[in-house]
Amino acid sequence: MRIALLGGTGDIGEGLALRFGRDTDHEVLVGSRDPERARDAVADYEDTLEDHGAEASIKGFVNEMVTDRADVVVLAVPPYHVGDTIESVADALDDDTILVTPAVAMKGDEGGMQFHPPSAGSTTELVAQRAPDGVPVVGAYHNLPAGPLADLEADIDYDTPVVGTDRDAVRTVVDLTNEIEGLRALEAGPLSNAAAIESLTALTITLTMHNDAQDLGVKWQE
Amino acid sequence: MRIALLGGTGDIGEGLALRFGRDTDHEVLVGSRDPERARDAVADYEDTLEDHGAEASIKGFVNEMVTDRADVVVLAVPPYHVGDTIESVADALDDDTILVTPAVAMKGDEGGMQFHPPSAGSTTELVAQRAPDGVPVVGAYHNLPAGPLADLEADIDYDTPVVGTDRDAVRTVVDLTNEIEGLRALEAGPLSNAAAIESLTALTITLTMHNDAQDLGVKWQE
Repeated sequence: MRIALLGGTGDIGEGLALRFGRDTDHEVLVGSRDPERARDAVADYEDTLEDHGAEASIKGFVNEMVTDRADVVVLAVPPYHVGDTIESVADALDDDTILVTPAVAMKGDEGGMQFHPPSAGSTTELVAQRAPDGVPVVGAYHNLPAGPLADLEADIDYDTPVVGTDRDAVRTVVDLTNEIEGLRALEAGPLSNAAAIESLTALTITLTMHNDAQDLGVKWQE
Repeated sequence: MRIALLGGTGDIGEGLALRFGRDTDHEVLVGSRDPERARDAVADYEDTLEDHGAEASIKGFVNEMVTDRADVVVLAVPPYHVGDTIESVADALDDDTILVTPAVAMKGDEGGMQFHPPSAGSTTELVAQRAPDGVPVVGAYHNLPAGPLADLEADIDYDTPVVGTDRDAVRTVVDLTNEIEGLRALEAGPLSNAAAIESLTALTITLTMHNDAQDLGVKWQE
């Protein structure tokens, strides 16, 4: 499969590029608004992967081009860039491309970080509103701490709930995610459950602040 | 310390009574609207504790009476009974009594369970609005699955975020909770963070439904 990471030069993009690159056979495409930044990031990721003995196929291009080639497109951009990023790649999106969003809108105060949803209810639902008709939209990777994700020395052990407009698309992303060592994807139903998942990102950062912790991630267990 | 569990005959009340009874030296008071139900529950809990070799001091009375005697009062009642339960014990609450709420208002649909907050923003904040002036209010135990909590055979391993109007009260509840084997309390700041914690209860039930799981609880880890 071909996985495009739009904004793949940012922190969550870096982590997904390295983990998909090391742990799976899928082709990873790093996108950026600036093709040179995409190429620089790819060179950097390839060096890191080589240091870890992994031969990965990563390429870097401008966002539109990686979207056009991909089966799964991850919008690894800040929440306030989600709308314009979708607009810029809309022509390259169709029913066969799964659009994945990990973005969470938050704002902080002295008490911690607070979920600050757009009027759609969640950023995941905003993405679904902005995506071209028929494009399956999936929310995933919201609660993963970017630091350990991008550090291939780190043994990670996190869960990530996955919501979506379409169950087949959810399953594809769940299966893909479970190929990454130390990640477990959990089906979480329709997009109406995204607000709770995005709230959890804010709560997790709040807990990090109040408990002298670092880079907390979440696990559900029996 | 004396811990009162209002509605202590219900499922979360049962779990807290048994765990505080077995794992700590604190005195547990089980409250109910009906004193006979409280006494019956206590007899039942004492049998269970005896079966597990624990000698615990548990007493059962009507809600007003256990509140009057307690240092920490847990409102282990459904969210729609929170208001009238506080009203019924208001005269017995004062600045020296910590009022703890684990209640979460939710409603379900085919997609899962959804957080359905009162206009206060969360049930925890509703409790703070209804509590007499000066009474410290703490939110805790929202995300714990009642089944394993009440099953002393179950080796539990869950986290519970704790919010509050007052940091000393939060710390008291955190310390108290950490005395229970397999529970870790995490400070989570002011009550404004309660909505995210209560959302997480709904999300956790949703994940249970969608992943053939049972009795999921949450852990945060680095």
